[in-house]
Amino acid sequence: MLPALTMGDPAGIGPELTVKAWEILRRTGDAFLWIGDPVLLGEAPFEIVGHAEQAASIFPSAIPVMPLTLPGSVTPGQADSAMAGCVIDAIETATRLAITGQVSAIVTNPISKIVLKQGGFAFPGHTEFLASLCGVEGEEIMMLASPRLRVVPVTVHVSLREALDSLTTDRIVHVGATLAEALRRDFGLMAPRIAVAGLNPHAGEGGVMGHEEQTMIAPAIEAMRQAGIDASGPYPPDTLFTDLARPLYDAALCMYHDQALIPLKTLDMASGVNVTLGLPVVRTSPDHGTAFAIAGQGKADPASLLAAMRMARDLGARRAASKEVQS
Amino acid sequence: MLPALTMGDPAGIGPELTVKAWEILRRTGDAFLWIGDPVLLGEAPFEIVGHAEQAASIFPSAIPVMPLTLPGSVTPGQADSAMAGCVIDAIETATRLAITGQVSAIVTNPISKIVLKQGGFAFPGHTEFLASLCGVEGEEIMMLASPRLRVVPVTVHVSLREALDSLTTDRIVHVGATLAEALRRDFGLMAPRIAVAGLNPHAGEGGVMGHEEQTMIAPAIEAMRQAGIDASGPYPPDTLFTDLARPLYDAALCMYHDQALIPLKTLDMASGVNVTLGLPVVRTSPDHGTAFAIAGQGKADPASLLAAMRMARDLGARRAASKEVQS
Repeated sequence: MLPALTMGDPAGIGPELTVKAWEILRRTGDAFLWIGDPVLLGEAPFEIVGHAEQAASIFPSAIPVMPLTLPGSVTPGQADSAMAGCVIDAIETATRLAITGQVSAIVTNPISKIVLKQGGFAFPGHTEFLASLCGVEGEEIMMLASPRLRVVPVTVHVSLREALDSLTTDRIVHVGATLAEALRRDFGLMAPRIAVAGLNPHAGEGGVMGHEEQTMIAPAIEAMRQAGIDASGPYPPDTLFTDLARPLYDAALCMYHDQALIPLKTLDMASGVNVTLGLPVVRTSPDHGTAFAIAGQGKADPASLLAAMRMARDLGARRAASKEVQS
Repeated sequence: MLPALTMGDPAGIGPELTVKAWEILRRTGDAFLWIGDPVLLGEAPFEIVGHAEQAASIFPSAIPVMPLTLPGSVTPGQADSAMAGCVIDAIETATRLAITGQVSAIVTNPISKIVLKQGGFAFPGHTEFLASLCGVEGEEIMMLASPRLRVVPVTVHVSLREALDSLTTDRIVHVGATLAEALRRDFGLMAPRIAVAGLNPHAGEGGVMGHEEQTMIAPAIEAMRQAGIDASGPYPPDTLFTDLARPLYDAALCMYHDQALIPLKTLDMASGVNVTLGLPVVRTSPDHGTAFAIAGQGKADPASLLAAMRMARDLGARRAASKEVQS
């Protein structure tokens, strides 16, 4: 089995990245199935497939395509809400293929939230839509993974004030448990070590600079440990991501978006991968947007998409193996 | 003129770092005057000086010491509140020498807040004490500087919730203006560029994830620009510290402690320097604590103290030159 790659926004850099990734991966044999309108592939060779399993043999010579049809012509860089239905269709098709076991994972090219919203899309983004398609709304968890760091923020796309208001011991434990399970099953770590960040400067310094470490985070760590999870902390956030600290854990559980994303992007700007945990399917995506400003100019860097494809391959293979063991 | 270096906590790594720094700096000619009890210097050669100006000629062969007398013997690693008075004395002496123009800058070895508090010290730390000694309480601002990044947090040693509650447009403008002046006068930058971070994920993404960028930070940037400061932003915090972004500014103005210190320590763990802005004297310090756990074992790394000494030398020279121009 191989991963499915969605088209993403047709006017963004997704089509260009797809062709660039194929040109590199065709030589390594890491095949994928692309879901989209082949008109977007330009001069690149492609072949229409009826079943995902045909994709692997085609891949060395052409991009295997499960075809969709856009409702009109596309101008790179020009967002167009008329495309929303087709963009959504690609995501739905990929999810269906993954749920029914025809592809090993879903990799999503970037979409424009504004385009989709104008097209009537009711979800804040990819991740929530996928959770809904899989029937696990609210279970989805965002991990950012790079060669040097894995981070999971407990609160994500809310204001910092709302993050503070919504943080609870139960939520920290739930996200930590999902993370631990994913690290074991999908990342192949027998005994994953989770470092839990504090919320406040110096992790509160004994209550002098905030109490959440004592009232909320330490109890969450204790609950995780009771559940057999190797969680430790709460650690002062500013020294948790240094060269000396990172080798001591497999993932950092962070309290808010930027506590997780500042160190990740500062260390590994181009090669971060977004991984959605908590779904019945494996899903990764590059850690960037549609980049309308440079679309169609040949400038887009496929590093993050390539990293997302490789991670999807590895996680998908381990997930499939774990299902075989269970069945 | 040369900088004064305080003793710091006698049971911490300060004495060892002082000797190690002297052994390196005596060869480069970057002299300092040490203020403390020479019993802490062990086998290292030292010479008592009556005036700071004698220190430079002594430095190549011995540590020039302005002597203090500890009230008893010191066991490395063992905090002792009986030492508090002498620790404070060293800071006061250094400040007096700097205010009266006998030394060019103050470099402080680490102190223990707990030791000083038990000894009756009424200040949260070095920085606030120095501001009080200089008669500018509340004007002090913390900069962390490393070879790859300078950051100034607008709110510092308070809980994250208190940071949110205390952030105001006026405070951002005040800190930004102090920063701009310091970058010009002390860092020698003719037209310093200040990048202002947002507070919320994606800098609020147009109000979807918080409004402080619109209501508080953008107006502060506008006010700074009106005052002739090259301030820009608010920028999404997670991409502000990448390799591509950092060359575009001279300092990042951050909204809270960890927004500033996570990227700085992640990038440059060992060589960060703490610089106090807003004082009538130049003051730097290493970016670490007393490290009681390794005191007296010869393991302490003088990298941060050396970086603090070099920065004190450079900033002190520029500050002195700017005073000559003014007078």
